[in-house]
Amino acid sequence: MRRAAALIAVAIASSAPAAEPPPGRAKAQMCATCHGALGLSNTPDAPHLAGQPRIYLVEQLKAFRSGKRAHEVMNVVAKPLSDADIADLAEWYASLAVEVREPR
Amino acid sequence: MRRAAALIAVAIASSAPAAEPPPGRAKAQMCATCHGALGLSNTPDAPHLAGQPRIYLVEQLKAFRSGKRAHEVMNVVAKPLSDADIADLAEWYASLAVEVREPR
Repeated sequence: MRRAAALIAVAIASSAPAAEPPPGRAKAQMCATCHGALGLSNTPDAPHLAGQPRIYLVEQLKAFRSGKRAHEVMNVVAKPLSDADIADLAEWYASLAVEVREPR
Repeated sequence: MRRAAALIAVAIASSAPAAEPPPGRAKAQMCATCHGALGLSNTPDAPHLAGQPRIYLVEQLKAFRSGKRAHEVMNVVAKPLSDADIADLAEWYASLAVEVREPR
């Protein structure tokens, strides 16, 4: 009976939201200047990142890092990113839910 | 008096919303397969286009058309687009309002 109670407690604890924010959230602070605090761009030539597919974000960050995709700012910004940084950033932006409304 | 009434009628008619949908809406039908009916992508390596800054969309479509930005599908799709097509598509996608929600 004790064991069952303990198992239930573990199950509840592991389904609770993590207290730690995801690592991508802090790493994304440097992106906010152009791409907005929650990934909605406030810069005419910078895209929204919120809710973008994770795989797309990983591909683009790697392309900016290698120079395959050319952009003055992004090639510099992406240069020092590790694969783990890129994975974290992509995970964070992909986790932001977006909704779209048609214009009236 | 007749003339004044006619002028008022014209003024009312021209302030009414256009019955014609914007040209970019129809042109965007070919994009929907990868980028979603309202610009929310359903393809892992295709980005959301809804609400993206107009200038960003114009730049990227021109870069795909010229080959400056490389992508197997987009280089083919963008090749026949005129500057007017690109302007219309960018206008349409930029007109879609997006909202973002933080994950819980």
